[in-house]
Amino acid sequence: MNFHVMTLFPGMINNAMGESITGRAIKAGLINVNAVDIRDFAINKHSRADDYPYGGGAGMVMQAEPVYLCYRHICSQIQKKPLQDEEGIIKKEPGIRVIYLTPQGKVFNQKLAEEYAAEKDIIFLCGHYEGIDERVTEEIVTDYVSIGDYVLTGGELPALVIMDAISRLVPGVLNNCISASTESFSDNLLEYPQYTRPAVWRGKEVPPVLLSGNHKKLAEWYREQSVIRTALMRPDLLEDAELTQAERKIADGITRKNKI
Amino acid sequence: MNFHVMTLFPGMINNAMGESITGRAIKAGLINVNAVDIRDFAINKHSRADDYPYGGGAGMVMQAEPVYLCYRHICSQIQKKPLQDEEGIIKKEPGIRVIYLTPQGKVFNQKLAEEYAAEKDIIFLCGHYEGIDERVTEEIVTDYVSIGDYVLTGGELPALVIMDAISRLVPGVLNNCISASTESFSDNLLEYPQYTRPAVWRGKEVPPVLLSGNHKKLAEWYREQSVIRTALMRPDLLEDAELTQAERKIADGITRKNKI
Repeated sequence: MNFHVMTLFPGMINNAMGESITGRAIKAGLINVNAVDIRDFAINKHSRADDYPYGGGAGMVMQAEPVYLCYRHICSQIQKKPLQDEEGIIKKEPGIRVIYLTPQGKVFNQKLAEEYAAEKDIIFLCGHYEGIDERVTEEIVTDYVSIGDYVLTGGELPALVIMDAISRLVPGVLNNCISASTESFSDNLLEYPQYTRPAVWRGKEVPPVLLSGNHKKLAEWYREQSVIRTALMRPDLLEDAELTQAERKIADGITRKNKI
Repeated sequence: MNFHVMTLFPGMINNAMGESITGRAIKAGLINVNAVDIRDFAINKHSRADDYPYGGGAGMVMQAEPVYLCYRHICSQIQKKPLQDEEGIIKKEPGIRVIYLTPQGKVFNQKLAEEYAAEKDIIFLCGHYEGIDERVTEEIVTDYVSIGDYVLTGGELPALVIMDAISRLVPGVLNNCISASTESFSDNLLEYPQYTRPAVWRGKEVPPVLLSGNHKKLAEWYREQSVIRTALMRPDLLEDAELTQAERKIADGITRKNKI
């Protein structure tokens, strides 16, 4: 999986992806991060990639041409052939996914992460300031994506969030350090609570069943805790969960009590 | 605004917050970021803050005691008085907000960002691996928050996203570099498209109204574009938007066409 990021802040992308689990995945050659500085394609002597908006108003807008030249540069890297640009003609590379991070996009979720994880190359376009000249996004963007209904200072954090969610799904990245099978949202249930040593911490004991060694009871407890927790925190998820009659009764008892 | 972050990866927090707009806000003394390494409070000779989960299963769980000691350390920093801990007794500091980043939490949005922006100190707790021993989160966490319905490798990126969203709202942080008044979600409408020089880019012209100098026409165009864009990208937002009869007609025409 190759991530290409068009950004004014390549250091932020490289630092964050270089840490922890994604950092190990890069070293192992499982994922690759190519952060490209849009400023390197600035067309004026001050290396500025932004300018005042037409029509007035506060803030600056990122110019079309540096973004476009950066895009063409990455396309030539992906296709491993030199860039042959005809002056003035806009050339869009078919089959290359370009995700523009914007609060105006469709909201990212786990299903979309799975879809993106099947790609070989993805280009992310990170806006800053008041946004990007509309003419270039119209030409090159294939996916307008938001990570949630809130406003951020730029597209770098959303790009990092999406790359992180995708990376976890690339085979080999999680291996032994996290299990993906019992995690939240699988079976439309949240994960059960976790405990580790000591058995008594500042007077608080772990649930005795965890120390019993009885695997059947343990599996029942995990399942029951998942149902209880989902009913408490995210009852909306239960609508599509497959529950036994007894489990449905437990869940209904909790959600009814919470409504009163 | 003082952000305190309990994390296994303080470098990731400091690097990302040190860039761009949040970096300038830190230098100007408008926000402050205090990333504290949970490993510094490890209670074994290997500086490990995680251990195997009770009951078995893949992955590691972060231990209660290092997290608790890290929390108490930050509380003593906030209150500017030495830590007086009685062995074995759990002491929770009232009035200090502790946000635990978890896919199980309530989903973060712009309204919550505004609520948090009114605080003076916020502590973020970033989980990793399979999560954190339930006994300590039960004791110290006040807010369980998720940034969206997707699974990430740790709590650091969500903490960064929330700190970024809050920072923008701290007076003085945005000043002249971005205007907050015309941005997406204000009036339940998305922002209109932006353009900057040149007036003709690779054969594509900017909308003539932007060059007309007619302020009345310009204001009408901005508003119409916001309505059209919202109808195209996020028709769900229009339900609570205040539209004129003419605007409602334009919006309905677009959403009806999209449904066919």
